[in-house]
Amino acid sequence: MRTLKLTLSYDGTRLVGWQRQAAGDSVQGVLEDALARFEGGPVTVHGAGRTDAGVHALGQVASVEVTFAHDPATLARALNAQLPDDVRVLAVEDAAPGFHARFDARSKTYRYCIRNGPVASPFERPFAWHVPQPLDVEAMRQAASRLLGRHDFSAFRSIGTDVADSVRTLHASAIVETAGAIPWLGDDGPLLTYEVTGDGFLRHMVRAIVGTLVEVGRGWRDPAQMDALLQSGDRARAGATAPPHGLFLVRVVYD
Amino acid sequence: MRTLKLTLSYDGTRLVGWQRQAAGDSVQGVLEDALARFEGGPVTVHGAGRTDAGVHALGQVASVEVTFAHDPATLARALNAQLPDDVRVLAVEDAAPGFHARFDARSKTYRYCIRNGPVASPFERPFAWHVPQPLDVEAMRQAASRLLGRHDFSAFRSIGTDVADSVRTLHASAIVETAGAIPWLGDDGPLLTYEVTGDGFLRHMVRAIVGTLVEVGRGWRDPAQMDALLQSGDRARAGATAPPHGLFLVRVVYD
Repeated sequence: MRTLKLTLSYDGTRLVGWQRQAAGDSVQGVLEDALARFEGGPVTVHGAGRTDAGVHALGQVASVEVTFAHDPATLARALNAQLPDDVRVLAVEDAAPGFHARFDARSKTYRYCIRNGPVASPFERPFAWHVPQPLDVEAMRQAASRLLGRHDFSAFRSIGTDVADSVRTLHASAIVETAGAIPWLGDDGPLLTYEVTGDGFLRHMVRAIVGTLVEVGRGWRDPAQMDALLQSGDRARAGATAPPHGLFLVRVVYD
Repeated sequence: MRTLKLTLSYDGTRLVGWQRQAAGDSVQGVLEDALARFEGGPVTVHGAGRTDAGVHALGQVASVEVTFAHDPATLARALNAQLPDDVRVLAVEDAAPGFHARFDARSKTYRYCIRNGPVASPFERPFAWHVPQPLDVEAMRQAASRLLGRHDFSAFRSIGTDVADSVRTLHASAIVETAGAIPWLGDDGPLLTYEVTGDGFLRHMVRAIVGTLVEVGRGWRDPAQMDALLQSGDRARAGATAPPHGLFLVRVVYD
């Protein structure tokens, strides 16, 4: 057996998410189908982050065990020729035997984009949550920093999931204003992003955090409230889950 | 009667183009339908550039004669609430009586985006032509500059069209390498763009120019050939028409 590490970028707009579903294109599904042609039989692809429908990736990582011998560069080109054009293989590498994209990940970084202003550019629309109301960015910054470190994130996980351990460590949790928009397209002013790096994330955790930060920005919550919210472990006390289309899995780091 | 000037941005991916068609959403069609609700009857909207299916706009301008009295800011908000979200009204202004977006335009600027490299980001895919082969950018620059000034552009117009006057003046015609990609998304290296400003454009003219410039970049043509090509007036001697999805109508200037 040979273990491959694949680095992927995808526009999640049309996709049903990472995981294979009964209907619709999933990232796992289109990759497994393309790789099965080389393997001459079924393969199982594991993703570092099981992104939901509508969520994008700039540097998702996947692992797969295969027996075929194609060299990595040829395989990357051949896969891109077969995959739908909203899923791109950025790199293929040979990995250590037994490498697993999810279990071996040391940290993951997500980015969530918010367009704060009266009109959302049609070009940003699939990639940023449009919040027309004024936001207090400084209050959002303070709230975001209170999530740094090791906490039980039960208050920010999707209701109905039952992962035994809900303690995670965040190494970065910051609101960043970027030059924004798509410079070669025009200038819609700075774009608000939430950048978060952690050793792991619960289901819908980033989107629940962003939904809560936007409620802080709108003045509905005080930044200091974040501590009590974490301690409560009560999902009902946190904010609404932000929509999936503003979220990007940016990168996954391994030892 | 009251004449309105509308500034528009749209993602042309899903649209059938500017002009109303029997089926599918056109920019003219969705605007006329939305404005007809305010007018209480049909209206006719004129666009500065009649963009083709798949072509985008950052600053298209349209004019329309109406009788209703809504103030411009309210109208802009109300139109955006009714329009599909890939068409946005950036501004509504009262214009001088009889203002016509196409006939009164002094100059128009188009931008054409090319991703030159082995892999096209899925995020740029709807907005840039992917040319994987190496391009000689300096040769393209030279060829582009030879189009500056007043020329008969018959060699670069769509075959079968029969506009009486095919002489146009280009005030800008340049290859520009921009920081590229979508900075808040990642870095795929510089993006190649062709920026052109003129007093008017023949049908498919920008795309025929870009197709020819890319053939220069691939070494199939010499930059000096552009002069003879213009003089020939022979569409068959110019390059293939570049695909629509890399093209943006950037702005329209009036006196």
